[in-house]
Amino acid sequence: MQLPTYEDVKKAAARIQGVAVRTPLLYARAASEALGRPVYVKAECLQRTGSFKFRGAFNRISQLAPGEASGGVIAVSSGNHAQGVAAAAALHGLSAKIVMPMDAPNVKREGTLALGAEIVPFDRATDDRDAIAQALAEKEGRVFVPPYEDFNVVAGQGTVGHEIAEDMDALGLEPAAVLTPAGGGGLLAGVALAIAARCPDAAIYGVEPDGFDDLRRSVVAGERQRNPKTVGSICDAMLTPMPGALPFAILKEQLSDVLLVSDDEAGQAVAHAFRSLKIVAEPGGAAALAAVLAGKVPAGDGAIVAVVSGGNVDAELFARLILKAS
Amino acid sequence: MQLPTYEDVKKAAARIQGVAVRTPLLYARAASEALGRPVYVKAECLQRTGSFKFRGAFNRISQLAPGEASGGVIAVSSGNHAQGVAAAAALHGLSAKIVMPMDAPNVKREGTLALGAEIVPFDRATDDRDAIAQALAEKEGRVFVPPYEDFNVVAGQGTVGHEIAEDMDALGLEPAAVLTPAGGGGLLAGVALAIAARCPDAAIYGVEPDGFDDLRRSVVAGERQRNPKTVGSICDAMLTPMPGALPFAILKEQLSDVLLVSDDEAGQAVAHAFRSLKIVAEPGGAAALAAVLAGKVPAGDGAIVAVVSGGNVDAELFARLILKAS
Repeated sequence: MQLPTYEDVKKAAARIQGVAVRTPLLYARAASEALGRPVYVKAECLQRTGSFKFRGAFNRISQLAPGEASGGVIAVSSGNHAQGVAAAAALHGLSAKIVMPMDAPNVKREGTLALGAEIVPFDRATDDRDAIAQALAEKEGRVFVPPYEDFNVVAGQGTVGHEIAEDMDALGLEPAAVLTPAGGGGLLAGVALAIAARCPDAAIYGVEPDGFDDLRRSVVAGERQRNPKTVGSICDAMLTPMPGALPFAILKEQLSDVLLVSDDEAGQAVAHAFRSLKIVAEPGGAAALAAVLAGKVPAGDGAIVAVVSGGNVDAELFARLILKAS
Repeated sequence: MQLPTYEDVKKAAARIQGVAVRTPLLYARAASEALGRPVYVKAECLQRTGSFKFRGAFNRISQLAPGEASGGVIAVSSGNHAQGVAAAAALHGLSAKIVMPMDAPNVKREGTLALGAEIVPFDRATDDRDAIAQALAEKEGRVFVPPYEDFNVVAGQGTVGHEIAEDMDALGLEPAAVLTPAGGGGLLAGVALAIAARCPDAAIYGVEPDGFDDLRRSVVAGERQRNPKTVGSICDAMLTPMPGALPFAILKEQLSDVLLVSDDEAGQAVAHAFRSLKIVAEPGGAAALAAVLAGKVPAGDGAIVAVVSGGNVDAELFARLILKAS
């Protein structure tokens, strides 16, 4: 298995320039005052399609050989990767089909359809989503775009880390800790490549929802472990079966630790981001910020950077979370 | 009356650098596709204290002579200017007192208190807020920081326009229209100074809530007109008695037109910003975006820039607005 390096992340950064949003690194004043150390938030909810997923999807699709995807592309996603693939495919003039769980948030389903993709629904609890996608890929001549088990997807997500390193440089700061939410591990692994190369003293943390701690157990065991379930958290974007083999190969070298947050902590982070940062975060996207706010980052006085990875949340859930905290 | 120029705006930009947030100019994809022309949003809700007001307050307070404000500063505000003044005063080691209407949103009251300021409540319908502030200023030796009737406040707000011009330059675009919400006219006048100097072909629009069209009527009459009331809209940040004399002196030269939006249109813009831009806008702060979305900008194919001026909105109102539109 060939692993991407920081050089591949920089190539991806050049490819997505002018197409992806260079999202701002926001100083999180209230969190910084509460913790007594500087906290910054990389606001990937402001990314095209509302999450970081556009970066990896665009980087992957931009590397297809001419004619390689004559039937278009296909992906499996609860909605963020779906929208990233749909937008990236449209920019390359390719049709996109998305295998999506039936319980995906409306905002993600509607966003995917609005980007011109077709949705094939499946049942998270009973259907084999990969088998559905595989069959359609073969039948229709579509190229499968994996959410994290892919060299160019991981390199693309790594551009988040590259931008963090550049912006921290511009501030004259060296991060002490960088955190991202972890589902399949693509974002976290890509960010780890960039941060390890640029900020070698920074600790790198993945954050998972309680009860879906496949990555934490995988790191402890030294080999990939599976989640016992893939339903039952408001962090819908993070309910993957197990870490990807490619991300895990990177992470077992680079990761400092995995932190866990409850649904309640994720919801409180959504409300905090609403109230204090004025950004819209989805629960899974706010997991890294939740770990920071809940004091789960080991003590120190260096700067913390938390990636808010997406903001595709239904109005009903968002309203419930901000009202609960107010 | 000495009016600030674009040179004064540039001086203000140098003073606030590293203290204020250089807020991002976000490409508004859904709005652009709906209108068939590029729409950008200057996200001032991401500014320190959650609105543009910090810029003018900091620029004003930074120009106080040593010892001039021995008793601190005082301001009148429903909450955004309050927080801007409170934060700017704290950065200069000065105490701040804010005369605030009793119906101000909780988030603004709490934000002001959290920044260390003291609040003096008044009744919007019956009390003379300026008299209250004047009496306290004299009694306590405080310098009054006006929300818009001030050379340095207007120059500070103009840095929003300066950044818009710089960012549009970097994109290789010339804006066809720039819109900001208009209460007392400080933001609009400051932005007009910068845009008129940097983008002389751009139309400049102020946006007011229906029924509070003092600026529109002032422009028509050629002299300042008063609002018949200062209560009764969800756009709480914009319910000023009449345009400031200083802003109006600039605006009667520079303004192209004033557009009006209903509370319903402002609410829909809040929901749009939630859904499509992933930013938190307050109703008054979303007024310019509302005018764009409601098709009130004269037809054309050039780029539109709408300033979202603030995001200090209570969870209850925000939840109601996003649920209504979903």
